[in-house]
Amino acid sequence: MTKRLSQKIGEQNFSKNLDGLIAGICRGEPRAIGQAISLVENNEPGADELMKRIYLMRKEGVVIGITGAPGTGKSTLVDQLIEKFREEKIPLGVIAVDPSSPFTGGAILGDRIRMMRHSCDEGVFIRSMATRGYLGGLAKATGEAIAILEAAGKKYIFVETVGVGQDEVDIVRYSDLVAVILTPQAGDEIQAFKAGVMEIGDLFVLNKADLPEAERAERQLRSMLELAGSGDSLPPIVKTVATKGEGIETLQATIKALIQQRDQESIIRRRKKLTGWLLREVIREKLASLLWEAFPPKEFDSQVEKIMAGEIDPYTAADLMCKKIIGKKEK
Amino acid sequence: MTKRLSQKIGEQNFSKNLDGLIAGICRGEPRAIGQAISLVENNEPGADELMKRIYLMRKEGVVIGITGAPGTGKSTLVDQLIEKFREEKIPLGVIAVDPSSPFTGGAILGDRIRMMRHSCDEGVFIRSMATRGYLGGLAKATGEAIAILEAAGKKYIFVETVGVGQDEVDIVRYSDLVAVILTPQAGDEIQAFKAGVMEIGDLFVLNKADLPEAERAERQLRSMLELAGSGDSLPPIVKTVATKGEGIETLQATIKALIQQRDQESIIRRRKKLTGWLLREVIREKLASLLWEAFPPKEFDSQVEKIMAGEIDPYTAADLMCKKIIGKKEK
Repeated sequence: MTKRLSQKIGEQNFSKNLDGLIAGICRGEPRAIGQAISLVENNEPGADELMKRIYLMRKEGVVIGITGAPGTGKSTLVDQLIEKFREEKIPLGVIAVDPSSPFTGGAILGDRIRMMRHSCDEGVFIRSMATRGYLGGLAKATGEAIAILEAAGKKYIFVETVGVGQDEVDIVRYSDLVAVILTPQAGDEIQAFKAGVMEIGDLFVLNKADLPEAERAERQLRSMLELAGSGDSLPPIVKTVATKGEGIETLQATIKALIQQRDQESIIRRRKKLTGWLLREVIREKLASLLWEAFPPKEFDSQVEKIMAGEIDPYTAADLMCKKIIGKKEK
Repeated sequence: MTKRLSQKIGEQNFSKNLDGLIAGICRGEPRAIGQAISLVENNEPGADELMKRIYLMRKEGVVIGITGAPGTGKSTLVDQLIEKFREEKIPLGVIAVDPSSPFTGGAILGDRIRMMRHSCDEGVFIRSMATRGYLGGLAKATGEAIAILEAAGKKYIFVETVGVGQDEVDIVRYSDLVAVILTPQAGDEIQAFKAGVMEIGDLFVLNKADLPEAERAERQLRSMLELAGSGDSLPPIVKTVATKGEGIETLQATIKALIQQRDQESIIRRRKKLTGWLLREVIREKLASLLWEAFPPKEFDSQVEKIMAGEIDPYTAADLMCKKIIGKKEK
């Protein structure tokens, strides 16, 4: 209990003391990592300063995107992969971009609870990020959480997103490696979804492979990949039954092999995409916050009311508002 | 064939002639509506001017958001609703925010094809919008498509989105009325998703209600709604089997009743949210396009390379870039 209390006091000191927080991150302390992510997530004072320093000191980890429709078993697969990678004592990070929380800010997922069994393991840091309206966008917060985990020495960082939605897709497509999770039960829409994600998958996982339709689904997936393929070798397909732990070893080996195969050029290409994406998001947030500074809620509301009264259209109103922010630069 | 050709020529004239395009929209001509939506979707020259004029002249329609996870049968339900509403000759618009196309820009959905049966009906306008990276965001393009359909005299506008992803959720939550589609087959994640969408649903549809688990699912849904409820009356639950057309009449009647029940205050409240949302999106796009003007791809890339080389961190780079755009206004 006394130890718990001293931890609490320690936490408070961290926020006053950026040096202490950064030192904690470098030592891989879960409390420090968690506090840093909260700082950037809530865009608290000091977040920018923290990220500037984190960014220049981080070691590069491998970011593995895991994507698939709801119910495909992503979280269970990640849970199993954590176990396998931890057998080798590799430091891991997991960022789950939670599709359930745009409104409530945190429905409890059974899957998250299942993953909690790793929470006593200091070598694994798991963080669920809600998709509720971040000012700077979910994408930026995720990019920053990745950088923090890299600074903390995590070698592999799993980013789990539901494979629908523009932000969620953007997040995963900038990973170093993308695993697309499918199941044999896919309906019409999932079918179309498959066609959509063909291009980002470096690896396809057919989960729930013990279902009777699995054979047919695999053939179908293979022929879709062949159709979409550019003559190069096809991305590997791994069959798993995550709930029983089947196929996880093969999946781990495939992930490792794909990481090994990457040449320096493709690593740089992907990193460049990731960096460009983060830069764009940071700029976007800066511009947005300038807007909210210039137009506090009351002033914004009065513009909306003018539009509703038919006194002005939204496009002319936006022009005028932008001019106020941009100042003399706007013609 | 000659008629077809003259239509083509007519289309070309439209783009040169904004007056003609707007007149076509007001007459509810599908070609004019389609061309106007393409104009704003691709942010072509003239799009802003078009929207300024559209916005001030549009008649207000009722925007009905239809949301649910992939495979719940949203499109089939919308298809059935179109049929029912068209029996009364009510002009309709449908915007399907397509989750399948962030990459390919247009996988063909079986559901969309099914809906094509309404394409000979001039009173229905159906448009599928891809979720591929719009510069100004999918949200803005959708908001503008709604305004165009309203100007074209569509009385009901269905906006169908997959209920996951920040943008998709934002789009639907600003509808006048939101129907959340669920099925009895929901797994763990859908379960959590349900908890997340409780707050935006004005109406819940339990589709595939002929499945054996339907009774249990309905009880579960009801108790979740009771838990989430603020003591007011619970939102209605309608059971349907969309593929067989079962329950569609009840669904239509429920939608109509809910629209009738709304008081003037709640209509204004929702419209205000919708207007504020569009204004925000328009401003965001304006700010972003200022950024891309100031930093063409080559210049942006050179910044990214500096970051990768460790010469600068993304936050300092963003500061400098924003200063260039904002000019003297930034301290």
